[in-house]
Amino acid sequence: MKKKPLILVTNDDGITAPGIRALISVMKEIGEVVVVAPDSPQSATGHAITINSTLFINKIDIDPEIETEYSCSGTPVDCVKFAVNEILKRKPDLCVSGVNHGSNSSINVIYSGTMSAAVEAGIEGIPAIGFSLLDYNWNADFEPIKASIKKITLEVLENGLPEGVILNVNFPKLKEKDIKGIKVCRQAKAMWQERFDKRQTPHGRDYYWLTGEFVNLDNGEDTDEWALEHGYISVVPVQFDLTAHHAMQTLNSWKLNND
Amino acid sequence: MKKKPLILVTNDDGITAPGIRALISVMKEIGEVVVVAPDSPQSATGHAITINSTLFINKIDIDPEIETEYSCSGTPVDCVKFAVNEILKRKPDLCVSGVNHGSNSSINVIYSGTMSAAVEAGIEGIPAIGFSLLDYNWNADFEPIKASIKKITLEVLENGLPEGVILNVNFPKLKEKDIKGIKVCRQAKAMWQERFDKRQTPHGRDYYWLTGEFVNLDNGEDTDEWALEHGYISVVPVQFDLTAHHAMQTLNSWKLNND
Repeated sequence: MKKKPLILVTNDDGITAPGIRALISVMKEIGEVVVVAPDSPQSATGHAITINSTLFINKIDIDPEIETEYSCSGTPVDCVKFAVNEILKRKPDLCVSGVNHGSNSSINVIYSGTMSAAVEAGIEGIPAIGFSLLDYNWNADFEPIKASIKKITLEVLENGLPEGVILNVNFPKLKEKDIKGIKVCRQAKAMWQERFDKRQTPHGRDYYWLTGEFVNLDNGEDTDEWALEHGYISVVPVQFDLTAHHAMQTLNSWKLNND
Repeated sequence: MKKKPLILVTNDDGITAPGIRALISVMKEIGEVVVVAPDSPQSATGHAITINSTLFINKIDIDPEIETEYSCSGTPVDCVKFAVNEILKRKPDLCVSGVNHGSNSSINVIYSGTMSAAVEAGIEGIPAIGFSLLDYNWNADFEPIKASIKKITLEVLENGLPEGVILNVNFPKLKEKDIKGIKVCRQAKAMWQERFDKRQTPHGRDYYWLTGEFVNLDNGEDTDEWALEHGYISVVPVQFDLTAHHAMQTLNSWKLNND
C-alpha cells in the first residue's frame, strides 16, 4: 500500500476491554486508526441493531495517539453503521473487530457481536476481519497473538477479500512458540446444549439464567474446532448470503403451486 | 402424518401481535400448538441471546384453545432455547416464527429476530419456517396469506427439510386473488443505506435515531426481491453454515504460514 490504510476498529466487549486495546496497538503499526465501539459489554448480541431506542455517541480520549475514538450506547453493528455513515469521511480500507475475549469458532459466529460487526462491514463493502482468543478472562494475554494478527491483516490489505466474504479468525490459548500455524478452515457443525439455571428473586418470583455446554458434532479435520484443538489459528471465510443454494432443486420438486 | 404434529410457534413482534395470532390460528388446524414468544417487541434483535441478564417466563392464557402458552422477557432465540429445553417434553416436529409485520427478504434475514428464532430451531435440528408479510402495519391483514401458510407448512411436514436448511417465506401485500404463486428464490444482494437522525434531549445532549433506506443492488430474476415485486410469495432456503466454501482455495493461496 502506498498510502496509510484507514482502519476502523470495533468489538463487542466494550471500548475499554483489553482485547480491543491490543487490537488497536497492532493496527496503529499498520495504518490510521479510527475506533467506534460499544460503551458497555455487548457479547452475544448477534446482528442486533437499535431501532426502538435512542443512540448516544461520545467522543472519548483513551489513547492520546488516536485522534478519532468514539463510544456508542448501541450494539457492535450500530457502531459500524454509525462510523461509516457519520464519522468517517471516506470508506475505510479495512474493518477489524475484537479481539474477542472468548471463542467465536463454529456456530458461535452466529451469536457473536464481534463477528456481526465484521459482517456488517462486509455488507457495506468493506474488507473485514473478526479476531477472537479462546480465553474468556478479562486479563487474557494478547501478546502471543499480536504478530499473527499483523500478518493476517497485512495479507488482507495486500490481497483484498473475495466479494461478500469476511474472515473469522480464532486463536488458541497458547504461548506464541506453541502455536503451530494458520489454517484456512470450514465452520464446524456444533451447537450449545442449553441448561436454564432457575432461581428466585427475593420477592419469590422465578427467573432463569441461560447457561450451556458446547458440543462439537463434527469429526472433520478441516474444521475450525479441529484446528484450534490441535494448536492452529483458524481462519474461516464467512458469507452473509445465507441462501442454501444446494437445497433449491429439492424445494423446486415440491408441489407448492398445485391447487 | 399419522399423529398430530407438535408445533412450536414464536415471533419477534411480541406474543400479542396480530401476526403471531394469525399464525397460531393456522397451526391449530394442523397440529398441537405450543407458543413461547417475547413479552415485548424484539424486532431487529438478530441472533441475540440473553447471557448478561435474567430471564422471566410467564405462563399466560390468551387463547383458551391452547394449553401451553408462555411469554418470555428475552429475545426470540431465547424463546426457542427455553421452549426446547424447559417446556417441551419432546422435540417439536416443526417450529414456525412470525408472521412478521414487515419484510424479512434479502439482507433483512440477518437482522431479523423472526428469522433468527427459526434459524435457532434449525440449529437444534427442528424443521423451521419464518413467515413475514410486507406490511409493517400493526393492523395488517393476514387473511389473504393463511391458505398459503398452511400449504407451505404441510409441504414441510410431508417432505421434511434438508439438514441445516430453514425456510424464509415472505408474502407480498396483496389480495389473495392477486398473489401469482410461490417461488423458490435466492437471497437478493441488497443493503440498507443508513441515515442517523440527530436530535437533542431536553437537557441539551445529542442523541440519534437509526433510520435508513433499503437498496436492492441485484437485478436477477431469481431473487426474493424480484419475486415479491412481481406478486409472488418468496421462499428462500437459508443455512447457518456461514462458511464461504468458494473462497477457501483463494485463501489457501495466501502466504499465511511463511516467515
